Amino acid sequence: MWLQKEITLKSRSRGFHIITGEILNSLPELKTVKTGLLNLFIQHTSASLTINENVSPDVRKDMELHFNKMVPENAPYYEHTLEGSDDMPAHIKSSLLGPSLIIPVKDGKLNLGTWQGIYLCEHRNYGGSRRVIATINGE
Amino acid sequence: MWLQKEITLKSRSRGFHIITGEILNSLPELKTVKTGLLNLFIQHTSASLTINENVSPDVRKDMELHFNKMVPENAPYYEHTLEGSDDMPAHIKSSLLGPSLIIPVKDGKLNLGTWQGIYLCEHRNYGGSRRVIATINGE
Amino acid sequence: MWLQKEITLKSRSRGFHIITGEILNSLPELKTVKTGLLNLFIQHTSASLTINENVSPDVRKDMELHFNKMVPENAPYYEHTLEGSDDMPAHIKSSLLGPSLIIPVKDGKLNLGTWQGIYLCEHRNYGGSRRVIATINGE
Repeated sequence: MWLQKEITLKSRSRGFHIITGEILNSLPELKTVKTGLLNLFIQHTSASLTINENVSPDVRKDMELHFNKMVPENAPYYEHTLEGSDDMPAHIKSSLLGPSLIIPVKDGKLNLGTWQGIYLCEHRNYGGSRRVIATINGE
Repeated sequence: MWLQKEITLKSRSRGFHIITGEILNSLPELKTVKTGLLNLFIQHTSASLTINENVSPDVRKDMELHFNKMVPENAPYYEHTLEGSDDMPAHIKSSLLGPSLIIPVKDGKLNLGTWQGIYLCEHRNYGGSRRVIATINGE
Repeated sequence: MWLQKEITLKSRSRGFHIITGEILNSLPELKTVKTGLLNLFIQHTSASLTINENVSPDVRKDMELHFNKMVPENAPYYEHTLEGSDDMPAHIKSSLLGPSLIIPVKDGKLNLGTWQGIYLCEHRNYGGSRRVIATINGE
């Protein structure tokens, strides 16, 4: 079984956000898959996807703070500055975290660990809504 | 052909460890796959998987030292500190390196380069044994 | 449908390079896939693959400058120094960016966003030509 679908995520502020529920609501077809894989691919270069802790909001806050430290705005060597001081750091962060996730599917559910949630990492101040291509392959 | 299996890795100390042999021993079914992909997905948010150099132990040591520098313990802006000073850095490292790998399979073997090995990246001081979901898809 | 193929990329200088065209030219079979996934896997531990902005050359230049800052040469704690000062940073960068990409395929084309291109990240001063294993799975 193959299925590919475009999901438009609701717009979020800069930072790290749990989107597990929004993804699952968009993919009722997952329930029919006994064994398979879900690929999520974000079609942008200034936002990214990752998996991390799904309970404490302070983990998401600390992630944002640390990525801003590790990839600062206004580094003196940036040349790509025309689209704002948040733009070049957003490109770097998106490659550090990556545009896609592969998640195992088992008995109609994502086979995530207890504490794992899917994060949208919004690296722009005003990124708008983001498009994710979901591809389910399984049996 | 689809196969999904839970592998419990033996407990390892904080740092970077080659687990290629342990993974292969757990997946004898790989030998029957002519062309396919193996997905390895770690069900934790404070350990991760990567691929890197499979000979020199000093590469693994330097990786650990550099990640500790790039993602330090006790950064003054961390709020998520209740579970120990190694916890928040572990979450950040796990997203930087990522929870999953996709490795091509060819003629019953992982189609890795000569110098590539699979690493478990253990970011906690006492992480215990880690669970990896292996999904094989191929023909 | 399964297809696996080795692509030898032409040799490139240290830095970030768009290789979307070179990959597509090597994979005419993509045109026959209605729905599927393409996996690209680089068989090296000192070069990596990522997806990022496909227009401005200054994004690629800034990426190189920032990764050199975040993962410097000659860090005093590196022990793995025998193969040159660019070697250990190359290993670290390759794990930060990752050896593989999964890209959705739709109606015979890569389902990338408008501004997304495939990058070869060459982390060595003289890396030579790099081998990528392309695996197409779809229907």
